[in-house]
Amino acid sequence: MSYEDMIPKSIKESLEKITLIPTYGERGAGRLVYNLLKLPLEKRLEILKALQEAVEKIRNCAECGIYTEEEICPICSNPRRSKKFICVVEEPQDAFAIERLERYTGVYHVLGGRIAPLEGISPSNLNINSLLERIEKYGVKEVILATNPNVEGEATAIYLAKLIKKQFPSVKITRISHGLQFGSLIEFADELSLEKSIENRKSL
Amino acid sequence: MSYEDMIPKSIKESLEKITLIPTYGERGAGRLVYNLLKLPLEKRLEILKALQEAVEKIRNCAECGIYTEEEICPICSNPRRSKKFICVVEEPQDAFAIERLERYTGVYHVLGGRIAPLEGISPSNLNINSLLERIEKYGVKEVILATNPNVEGEATAIYLAKLIKKQFPSVKITRISHGLQFGSLIEFADELSLEKSIENRKSL
Repeated sequence: MSYEDMIPKSIKESLEKITLIPTYGERGAGRLVYNLLKLPLEKRLEILKALQEAVEKIRNCAECGIYTEEEICPICSNPRRSKKFICVVEEPQDAFAIERLERYTGVYHVLGGRIAPLEGISPSNLNINSLLERIEKYGVKEVILATNPNVEGEATAIYLAKLIKKQFPSVKITRISHGLQFGSLIEFADELSLEKSIENRKSL
Repeated sequence: MSYEDMIPKSIKESLEKITLIPTYGERGAGRLVYNLLKLPLEKRLEILKALQEAVEKIRNCAECGIYTEEEICPICSNPRRSKKFICVVEEPQDAFAIERLERYTGVYHVLGGRIAPLEGISPSNLNINSLLERIEKYGVKEVILATNPNVEGEATAIYLAKLIKKQFPSVKITRISHGLQFGSLIEFADELSLEKSIENRKSL
């Protein structure tokens, strides 16, 4: 009997399937499966049931692309959220993080990633056409570019700003500001953040 | 409408349930759920189905404790594996790693963890009684202590060695050897490994 027969088939198959999830390799799959199996059967089933529910119910909002259980998400279908303001994010969970602040009253637009030529992700792989359509359809006043504060997110924001300006010269385009993280120490700040925080300094 | 209403219920619940899995916090749960949801529905269901299968079928072997789909695992039920040799491991996946070498022909015993007083894990929380019973029942010749090469694993091995020696003075007790990792550089080796590798030096 070889090693192959010693690992139960259902473990082997789940380890294999989990590596289909983005960012999950052999190690991540093992961590998930073996830690899950440490729990008693009842708890395992409880976790799987919750996950199954999400997996079956969640879709992308037909309007903005964030995760929702409805055809149109509660933000897009809320008449008190202004469609004149669109906050562009890379992923649905970025919008959830902004929602947590309970400040923003506009709507979102999920790109579904960022431009990353090295990974083969070009503008045509992102939800950009639908963004332009929404800007036109709703007579948007301001587009807030909230892609991540890293090289790819920055490049994506610059690309979108140019594109939107060209087609809709009167639309205000803003970028979330960079700077030092609140509670951080200047001594340990990364160079880019420090540089941006000095560039974006405000008079007191 | 508050933030709470913006995150779909099924996402909130699965994020919450996943933190029940050992080593999974809010960040790990988000990584799993949001990356899973990036996949098309069909792929998500395929992954969940495999995981569900493992979760339902896998149990601990009634004899040695490794993961199996049977009452008794294929190692314990294989007449060609000698029950006179027991290799003691912390977790089932440690046994799978040793199986991968295709060298060991004895059986295993899963402790289900290691002695870690700071985490409240004492010998009484581990499968030690059943180990002693198996040593007696099968007239074991050698117990190989293959707990992890770290402080807790080492302490657990020392504890078990004393306990077994006292009850079964004629049983040979061995500990897997420490040393430099194959392919590593002495220059960068951690002190303990280097020390052990000199201590355990062999004549050529």
